[in-house]
Amino acid sequence: MKHVIDSTDLTVEEIDGILKLAQDIIDDKEAYSEACKGKKLATLFFEPSTRTRLSFESAMMELGGNVLGFSSADSSSATKGESVGDTTRVVSCYADIIAMRHPKEGAPMRASMVSGVPIINAGDGGHNHPTQTLTDLLTILREKGRLDNFTIGLCGDLKFGRTVHSLIKALSRYENIKFILIAPKELRVPEYIISEVLEAKNIPYEEVESMEEVMSELDVLYMTRVQKERFFNEADYVRLKDTYILDGKKLKNAKSDLAILHPLPRVNEISVEIDDDPRACYFRQVMNGKFVRMALMLTLLKANGAKLNLSADKLAKIPE
Amino acid sequence: MKHVIDSTDLTVEEIDGILKLAQDIIDDKEAYSEACKGKKLATLFFEPSTRTRLSFESAMMELGGNVLGFSSADSSSATKGESVGDTTRVVSCYADIIAMRHPKEGAPMRASMVSGVPIINAGDGGHNHPTQTLTDLLTILREKGRLDNFTIGLCGDLKFGRTVHSLIKALSRYENIKFILIAPKELRVPEYIISEVLEAKNIPYEEVESMEEVMSELDVLYMTRVQKERFFNEADYVRLKDTYILDGKKLKNAKSDLAILHPLPRVNEISVEIDDDPRACYFRQVMNGKFVRMALMLTLLKANGAKLNLSADKLAKIPE
Amino acid sequence: MKHVIDSTDLTVEEIDGILKLAQDIIDDKEAYSEACKGKKLATLFFEPSTRTRLSFESAMMELGGNVLGFSSADSSSATKGESVGDTTRVVSCYADIIAMRHPKEGAPMRASMVSGVPIINAGDGGHNHPTQTLTDLLTILREKGRLDNFTIGLCGDLKFGRTVHSLIKALSRYENIKFILIAPKELRVPEYIISEVLEAKNIPYEEVESMEEVMSELDVLYMTRVQKERFFNEADYVRLKDTYILDGKKLKNAKSDLAILHPLPRVNEISVEIDDDPRACYFRQVMNGKFVRMALMLTLLKANGAKLNLSADKLAKIPE
Repeated sequence: MKHVIDSTDLTVEEIDGILKLAQDIIDDKEAYSEACKGKKLATLFFEPSTRTRLSFESAMMELGGNVLGFSSADSSSATKGESVGDTTRVVSCYADIIAMRHPKEGAPMRASMVSGVPIINAGDGGHNHPTQTLTDLLTILREKGRLDNFTIGLCGDLKFGRTVHSLIKALSRYENIKFILIAPKELRVPEYIISEVLEAKNIPYEEVESMEEVMSELDVLYMTRVQKERFFNEADYVRLKDTYILDGKKLKNAKSDLAILHPLPRVNEISVEIDDDPRACYFRQVMNGKFVRMALMLTLLKANGAKLNLSADKLAKIPE
Repeated sequence: MKHVIDSTDLTVEEIDGILKLAQDIIDDKEAYSEACKGKKLATLFFEPSTRTRLSFESAMMELGGNVLGFSSADSSSATKGESVGDTTRVVSCYADIIAMRHPKEGAPMRASMVSGVPIINAGDGGHNHPTQTLTDLLTILREKGRLDNFTIGLCGDLKFGRTVHSLIKALSRYENIKFILIAPKELRVPEYIISEVLEAKNIPYEEVESMEEVMSELDVLYMTRVQKERFFNEADYVRLKDTYILDGKKLKNAKSDLAILHPLPRVNEISVEIDDDPRACYFRQVMNGKFVRMALMLTLLKANGAKLNLSADKLAKIPE
Repeated sequence: MKHVIDSTDLTVEEIDGILKLAQDIIDDKEAYSEACKGKKLATLFFEPSTRTRLSFESAMMELGGNVLGFSSADSSSATKGESVGDTTRVVSCYADIIAMRHPKEGAPMRASMVSGVPIINAGDGGHNHPTQTLTDLLTILREKGRLDNFTIGLCGDLKFGRTVHSLIKALSRYENIKFILIAPKELRVPEYIISEVLEAKNIPYEEVESMEEVMSELDVLYMTRVQKERFFNEADYVRLKDTYILDGKKLKNAKSDLAILHPLPRVNEISVEIDDDPRACYFRQVMNGKFVRMALMLTLLKANGAKLNLSADKLAKIPE
């Protein structure tokens, strides 16, 4: 039984296979529109996350399948003291694949140990969120045409932002990428990522405090939110907050083919004046998230022996 | 991109086209049962409204489409501070059409400005609720056979009741309708509706305080709830409350073909003893609400270029 | 109009017909996979119950139908003061069949009196939960090959546990079943069930306080939870609690073909070390619950004249 709990569960080859499949889906939607006819996705969201949940649900629907589940722990059996393992075994009887979001790290891993169907981690605490990483990779691939040979700036809260950590790990497996880490001192990338990922692999990186000084170098800019409550004191927050808000002025020296990503939701860290700039990719990124989840679900269902309603030709495109 | 935010967004011709289509759907359900195959409706309900939400959802399902969304703000990203505009742009990536309910007036309008798919206002604060108005019109049309030449009594809270205001505006565009406005002094129709709608167009109207005195004149009686908290003082409430409860006794002098409507939910303003009277139309009105929403969604999807799974014959019945 | 409010609404013949149909569905799923094409189930859950709700929803989906509804009273119109009767009449316009869960006893009965479509009681207060009883019966039938001639131990809270009461009543209609009632004094089966069901029909039974003393006799063991708050005093609870927890040691003298059932959710009354024992049936029981609900919905829809998308052959298998 195959599950996706951590983005590092997937090899580079597997990731490339999924991204390739996602692109074939984008190019030929109709061919996949009944692939999951008669299949059911359960979305078990022990904490709310509309965007992620609706992305999974629309993905399954565009494959011709059905969706059931819950969107918060209030309306689940968790309130009656049922373990995540039991909930998973029960829901295994109702669905062919499960996307699980849980406030506790490790819950989806625990679920995968007893599940009769594939589990996809849709975010567990501050830990992992592998489909976000796949979404980011697909977006870079589609915007830049490649997953190697570029300079990426990661900006904002690099200390607590799980999507940033996963993305660094994922990109570190591709050739010739330079990382520019843009963050206030308090919110720098954790030391273990620097030493165990970047330095261990001899990957070039730079740490800076403002995006303006490096903007002209960037091929990709990955924005994240800087939450006020992360700062040690009010004075630092007030001094720094505008530094991490992207607006037209800060984009002045940017490359004309820069790709600006954001995992959303944003609060104010990207000015809405940027939204219609062709370099703003974050809404296309949302669309890519749907397609990459379609590809991932097809891959897991096939790996687990589910009968998919696809032509032999398309079936062969699903990575083993 | 066409949206329906306010019932006055639609011309009389457009409304008549939608009502005609709704009637064709009623007469020939099977022909429309796969019209929206592969399409998705998102119900974004930032405040709960079971009746309206389920009406939209069943409407899309009866067109062969799918539904996703949320039923209250708690389980949405709004709790993370995302703007309505961003939520809308994100959901545009997941759905072909959006029905939005929001406690703040203007939110669906705001959404329509950035949406990549048609938005239907499913109620915003005390403002607009255009599909309720279409439901009311379809019900009158089906019960009376026409939308002109009748006397309608509007009863209850005419001051705050948005459905009443919309219905007056909508009916004022048809010929020879007389309005009888039945309300306690505190809850009369706002002055601007009298002067800008009724008097400006020379439409006959009458304001009275009890329904009994006018019952025998009415062709249509539109009941609404009188909420206790609307009254200035307890004494007025106690004195007046029974005046606005419809029961068998008050119906004594009513016409035999009177049509009694109510937007629901009711609390006690119509006695359950009336429910089986053939003149009680409020549950048929619920059914009409589903069909008119089917017609509206088809109209908007076609206007926005969606490919519908319909015969050329039926496709031609969808208003341009 | 036929409804299922109480498991005693169904005759033994009707139950046997439903169980037989459920088994045909298990053996020939594909043949039923579009039986309810174009049909809609409404799940009206005025209190949350994930397991039951998802069981109904997956059942309808596996019949090719759609699902709409709500999972808690918060997101329903009940908060606006609408009666259960009105909610039911409204939802009758949106769905072909309704599964209702309600904290108040009698609410589904009340709903059935005004509903335009069949109502299935999905649990009302401490009263009835007929689809759980059907699930239990199907599980015993599939595990033991029969519904007569066995000894069943019912263990735990036999006083307040509604599933136990319903199961005793249901099994009392079959031949040669011996009941062993395993409970602390405070939580014994109510006197009226002893006198009106067991003694009235001369059915053999025994009341004991520990499962160990009777384990070797049992063909079926039905476990339920003993809630701390049911005990009169802490001392009794501490003294007795381990007596009602099933673990490997207590199974030592059990028959090799014992069937262990539990309605779930469990807290700790069955040790997880038992889960992989072939005698542990409670997760298969979950699966059976889905199939028996498919059979029940087909039966009610047919009885109410719905057009099902089934071969004549399969249609004939649905009990009249």
